[in-house]
Amino acid sequence: MTRGRFIVLEGGEGGGKSTQARRLRDHLDARGRRVLLTREPGGSPLAEAIRELVLGSWPEGVDATTELLLIFAARAAHLHATIMPALEAGTDVICDRFVDASYAYQGAGRGLGAARVAVLEKLVLGTLTPDCVLVLDIAPELGVQRIAERGDNNRFDAESLAFMQRVRSAYLARAAAAPERYAVIDAARDVDTVAAELAAIVEALP
Amino acid sequence: MTRGRFIVLEGGEGGGKSTQARRLRDHLDARGRRVLLTREPGGSPLAEAIRELVLGSWPEGVDATTELLLIFAARAAHLHATIMPALEAGTDVICDRFVDASYAYQGAGRGLGAARVAVLEKLVLGTLTPDCVLVLDIAPELGVQRIAERGDNNRFDAESLAFMQRVRSAYLARAAAAPERYAVIDAARDVDTVAAELAAIVEALP
Repeated sequence: MTRGRFIVLEGGEGGGKSTQARRLRDHLDARGRRVLLTREPGGSPLAEAIRELVLGSWPEGVDATTELLLIFAARAAHLHATIMPALEAGTDVICDRFVDASYAYQGAGRGLGAARVAVLEKLVLGTLTPDCVLVLDIAPELGVQRIAERGDNNRFDAESLAFMQRVRSAYLARAAAAPERYAVIDAARDVDTVAAELAAIVEALP
Repeated sequence: MTRGRFIVLEGGEGGGKSTQARRLRDHLDARGRRVLLTREPGGSPLAEAIRELVLGSWPEGVDATTELLLIFAARAAHLHATIMPALEAGTDVICDRFVDASYAYQGAGRGLGAARVAVLEKLVLGTLTPDCVLVLDIAPELGVQRIAERGDNNRFDAESLAFMQRVRSAYLARAAAAPERYAVIDAARDVDTVAAELAAIVEALP
């Protein structure tokens, strides 16, 4: 059986990842492909419980290393329970955030550095990489404006513009380093235009 | 200010760690030392919430890597919120389980291997080590009998004797490799005898 394709949507807050992930799911579904839409942190009951902890507000705070480890714990559970079984069954997986988010948010945003993230990537993923990473790129100022209109905010949405700029720069640097697997999409445009571009990119995948 | 002493109790199930940790706390307290008794996984509100997840039963299971990462996430939170502030304030910390438990349970018991645990130890602890690790050693057969009488069991208490033997062997090997920091105590003896031995060892610490 042909393995499913592992497609990841990435990018800063307010870039429309969740909306575009659903649109892409619907597009593939309409083409007759089996497709699973999932998200990080989360994607299995245990991983969603970890998500609640890591996105929550704690009087003691959540130090950066704790955050990094919780996100990789959720990722390990997600891979084990959801992603790998789906890929092996030939189902395409569309994941709203994956390991690039750890490089962007914990490595760059929180300043832990890429080396610490790489250690955990190797531990949890081994040699697994997404087949395609779609980076929905948006200026932090515009992203912040969009999430302010949305309402259901978490700890990350309240970070500074400087934090979000570090996140954006990290995504762009990772995309530039592996253009064969990454695409950077201008997410400031209207939803239909972005959706059409994502669908075209995914159609061109093997 | 003199830093507090970091004293860890380790060992398999049914060795009486929790009881002995309280006895040791009371002993030091009676000698006029400031002392904090804490435990892993747990020891801060966030770490205790992680404990609930990692000791819980999940329909998807808890794969070994997820378990290892959750335990180190709890450890990072515990260090950040509880252990380091106490040690820096000159308070002795008695911790019911610490990083040796990860080598014993996840590294040896689950078969992840010591190298994976060492990667996380370096990430989370840097160069921090306990001043003294007290290994309450007990034959798994006897430990299992004791926890069966106790009642409040979790996922780990239900592991096989072979698992518990791997845990015990790992503790003994780690103690043998660093005798200046470890003491192995025969925990099959009565509570008062063990408590007196632990108190004597701790009295002899700098």
